Amino acid sequence: YLANTLDPIVPLSGPKLLPDQTYDDAKEQFDVILIPGGIIGDGKAEHSLMNFLKRQGPNAKHILTVCTGSWILSSTGLLDGKRATTNKEMFKVIKEDTKDLPITWIAKARWVATEDKKIWSSSGVTAGMDLAYAFLEYITGKGPAEASAGFLEMIVNGEGDDPFAAKNGLV
Amino acid sequence: YLANTLDPIVPLSGPKLLPDQTYDDAKEQFDVILIPGGIIGDGKAEHSLMNFLKRQGPNAKHILTVCTGSWILSSTGLLDGKRATTNKEMFKVIKEDTKDLPITWIAKARWVATEDKKIWSSSGVTAGMDLAYAFLEYITGKGPAEASAGFLEMIVNGEGDDPFAAKNGLV
Repeated sequence: YLANTLDPIVPLSGPKLLPDQTYDDAKEQFDVILIPGGIIGDGKAEHSLMNFLKRQGPNAKHILTVCTGSWILSSTGLLDGKRATTNKEMFKVIKEDTKDLPITWIAKARWVATEDKKIWSSSGVTAGMDLAYAFLEYITGKGPAEASAGFLEMIVNGEGDDPFAAKNGLV
Repeated sequence: YLANTLDPIVPLSGPKLLPDQTYDDAKEQFDVILIPGGIIGDGKAEHSLMNFLKRQGPNAKHILTVCTGSWILSSTGLLDGKRATTNKEMFKVIKEDTKDLPITWIAKARWVATEDKKIWSSSGVTAGMDLAYAFLEYITGKGPAEASAGFLEMIVNGEGDDPFAAKNGLV
């Protein structure tokens, strides 16, 4: 759990969180990186986060994004030539903001994986759970994914089960 | 966000959390209390938590529990004569443990509200989101609840949409 500083993070809701390391201090290469989203104004994240993603991205095995996390990722170049999705209420804003980048934004999708399965992006935050299920199934196979969903009592929605694209006039 | 001490909480997964107050120091009466669950061994929570619930419970407007949170609540007496549900993989253990208490455990339910709408309990953790939706709708009406679900892209499951009761042989 990384952040700009080691100060407690005050989220929009929920308890304060304590980061383990700062972006600048994280020197080891991570295998899997998860970028959460949220309300991020103009989609421009702090330099230390962007530098971290540019430094780690090429050799990370997998990068997962939730909600507007793909908006952050878009300006690193790591999504160039690839497919991705994002929060559906922010979809048009993000598509317009990144119109000069070679990114294929998919409107009707609960989540999207790139062809090489390196980058996985989800729609709005709860879609992140469906992405996590699909990613876990990809990494571990059906058994552990189903066992996790069973204990969490998670009713899994599939890749294409996305009513929010239509609700937001995107399809 | 209350805990036994102000020390950071290290959850089973996710970042460390910072409590705002201890159970013992929380003197004001809360309107809404949410008891999360998790793996809680024999269902016996710490004295400071139990004392807090016994002190606050009678005058709280609403008490919400998620997963095994209703197991914690069961030994306060606040569920006596009432209906509740809990995690479905733990259902039989919890029903057996509380067999001397006058609690009606409902097996097939994503969540259960008591008749006076004071106590709302959900099944395993992801069912807590469906409970939160239903509770928000009860408190604020359909509009704000639907707007929240829209932004979160939450596919809401209804009160009776519970495949996990059958999966665990409870119905």
